[in-house]
Amino acid sequence: RINGDRLWDSLMEMAKIGPGLRGGNNRQTLTDEDGEGRRLFQSWCEKAGLSMGVDTMGNMFFTRPGADPDALPVYVGSHLDTQPTGGKFDGVLGVLGGLELVRTLDDLNIETKHPIVVVNWTNEEGTRFAPAMLASGVFAGIHDQDWAYNREDAKGKKFGDELERIGWKGEEEVGARKMHALFELHIEQGPILEAEGKDIGVVTHGQGLWWLQITLTGKESHTGSTPMPMRKNAGLGMARITELVHTVAMANQPGAVGAIGHVDVYPNSRNVIPGRVVFTVDIRSPDLSTLSAMKAEIEDKAPKIAKELGLEILIEEAGHFDPVTFDEGCVTAVRNAAERLGYTHRNIVSGAGHDACWINRVAPTSMVMCPCVDGLSHNEDEDISKEWAAAGADVLLHAVLETAEI
Amino acid sequence: RINGDRLWDSLMEMAKIGPGLRGGNNRQTLTDEDGEGRRLFQSWCEKAGLSMGVDTMGNMFFTRPGADPDALPVYVGSHLDTQPTGGKFDGVLGVLGGLELVRTLDDLNIETKHPIVVVNWTNEEGTRFAPAMLASGVFAGIHDQDWAYNREDAKGKKFGDELERIGWKGEEEVGARKMHALFELHIEQGPILEAEGKDIGVVTHGQGLWWLQITLTGKESHTGSTPMPMRKNAGLGMARITELVHTVAMANQPGAVGAIGHVDVYPNSRNVIPGRVVFTVDIRSPDLSTLSAMKAEIEDKAPKIAKELGLEILIEEAGHFDPVTFDEGCVTAVRNAAERLGYTHRNIVSGAGHDACWINRVAPTSMVMCPCVDGLSHNEDEDISKEWAAAGADVLLHAVLETAEI
Ligand SMILES: NC(=O)NCCC(=O)O
Ligand SMILES: NC(=O)NCCC(=O)O
Repeated sequence: RINGDRLWDSLMEMAKIGPGLRGGNNRQTLTDEDGEGRRLFQSWCEKAGLSMGVDTMGNMFFTRPGADPDALPVYVGSHLDTQPTGGKFDGVLGVLGGLELVRTLDDLNIETKHPIVVVNWTNEEGTRFAPAMLASGVFAGIHDQDWAYNREDAKGKKFGDELERIGWKGEEEVGARKMHALFELHIEQGPILEAEGKDIGVVTHGQGLWWLQITLTGKESHTGSTPMPMRKNAGLGMARITELVHTVAMANQPGAVGAIGHVDVYPNSRNVIPGRVVFTVDIRSPDLSTLSAMKAEIEDKAPKIAKELGLEILIEEAGHFDPVTFDEGCVTAVRNAAERLGYTHRNIVSGAGHDACWINRVAPTSMVMCPCVDGLSHNEDEDISKEWAAAGADVLLHAVLETAEI
Repeated sequence: RINGDRLWDSLMEMAKIGPGLRGGNNRQTLTDEDGEGRRLFQSWCEKAGLSMGVDTMGNMFFTRPGADPDALPVYVGSHLDTQPTGGKFDGVLGVLGGLELVRTLDDLNIETKHPIVVVNWTNEEGTRFAPAMLASGVFAGIHDQDWAYNREDAKGKKFGDELERIGWKGEEEVGARKMHALFELHIEQGPILEAEGKDIGVVTHGQGLWWLQITLTGKESHTGSTPMPMRKNAGLGMARITELVHTVAMANQPGAVGAIGHVDVYPNSRNVIPGRVVFTVDIRSPDLSTLSAMKAEIEDKAPKIAKELGLEILIEEAGHFDPVTFDEGCVTAVRNAAERLGYTHRNIVSGAGHDACWINRVAPTSMVMCPCVDGLSHNEDEDISKEWAAAGADVLLHAVLETAEI
């Protein structure tokens, strides 16, 4: 078993970097805080005797050698970056759970046949630079590295420049590493495990996603003296498309989800009819044909809503992944580990995207999930218990041991 | 007749201060740019031999003496502050039209019985510090001065502090001045005069208004892993109340208007369900009972929308004025002036609030309106022709001459 107290202490230590306003974290990718978090993680890994590699996307790899020089490594990890008003565990648990696993093997003097690598993937959240899981996506060959470098944040800063600025653009060619397997421990970010009183989610699938960005352009004019029939109200268009996205998700229950997350209104003045609104759509389903149909319905109906209001509409794709089926061997290793340790568990579909979803394209992969209070995530109040964290890391340890072979 | 070229040149000169991004102006109240615009106006007035008074709300008064020492002055003016993405004429035309009137009287060596005072009212727009027409409202005894000083902008800066900062907090007691009459020249900010090919709007009434600020609080959580039935989506609530406001306005046609102008979404992240949205409602009608009924309907239905979505709602009043009936004598003076000068004209209800609406409570008041291109205002593309401006100022001159007596 791993050391639950030590894991918890490391989680609390990391949470001091980029504190949020209400007890959570704001350690967005490629900010100074991200740099500081990376250095703390590096210092811990080096103290544990691990050797570092950093690739050209800033992904950090820390290796514990194996007994067989020819055996490919087993990877464990997740991400240290957070949402702007994020929690202390989303991503961080998977990275520090990986570190705890290594510390435990050291404590017990256990040598594995396969090396073990603890990884921190750059920009999983995708809030500052869309899309999410950017660097694991480049690693898996989904995105082009140059394209990734040119992603811009809201202030027009580029991913590549910011990566260089914080000093974490490495030398290693991204995606060159071959993996025996990868396991990612993550909080559920949803309410199912807690509601059913399960310790562990054995993640069999991941939901697919489409991110769209919609720009509606009308005519900004005086709210008081522009008669109703003469308006081109981009705010009203945004409201109607918000309702459309909700309706489309509700029509595909159970399973599908959808919402508007980011909204910018121009000129955003109380007596001016909005002349332009830019907003983002996030729709998901575990079923590919459902997801495609949802997207098609929005792309069909949103322009009609715009037309009726005299608005111009631009719909841009801002991120996408298909639903994922994780590797049967890895899934079984996770389930076996939970069984062996006596933890209650159930199969689960990941509602969120994860780095593991991309890596599954290039290596056998699965995930371990643990519950979180009230299903809350992407929220400073995100919370888990020390026991939940420890159970998750225990299962991670045993799944890795089965795969990396003692 | 006034000098149309000189008026136009002054308008263009003033527009250089606080230029917008697309040819309009951003000279918001109590910014450095507002201070600079005030100093330019002061220099012009002093060059015309007018003496300045500034009151404790920063209202600027420039006096041209009359022949009768006991006669109360006739006031003309409007405001120099603009919207964040405002035009070059909204407010400015009325102030510089007043100055042009004085310059013309000087050219022609005309002495009036009543003194003439050109006024610039502080914070007419109300975008930076709600409500609009703040300083004329204090002048008319509608608002308390201390309350006004404590109005805060989006960054938490106070009106009183900012007034002091730009150096325009005067000594004169606000509202102490007595007026024989007040005339305000303003662009229509709507499409009616242009559509009907009229030179002049004789403003008989002003629309009433309610400004509300609504805060919806739900629960920010992960868009991907929070099942639809477990959400508290404040963004969806905002969308539905946007539709409600539109529906309420449409149900009271012709005449009523309504829209959402300012929207702040928290945390405003593409994969986070909005946990809180703060937005503003602007509803208007020329009819008091209609306006009250519209407000009541929103206050009744918005909480029901919130409840259905599991949201908390806070509705705050952010500004209000009743519909206005302007002084019959002043209205007649405006109509007579237009007739005498041979301008086409029609009676009109002001869709926007104006300083004149408040002053009408304490002195005989009316307004002169001139058309604007496409009815566009509160927009950098706001435009008028030199001829429209000159016609408006001509009518202002003659209405004032009839009232101030030669
Ligand atoms: N786990 C997580 O929040 N990933 C970010 C991408 C997503 O929204 O699913
Ligand atoms: N004229 C004008 O835009 N006044 C500001 C207050 C309002 O929105 O009516």
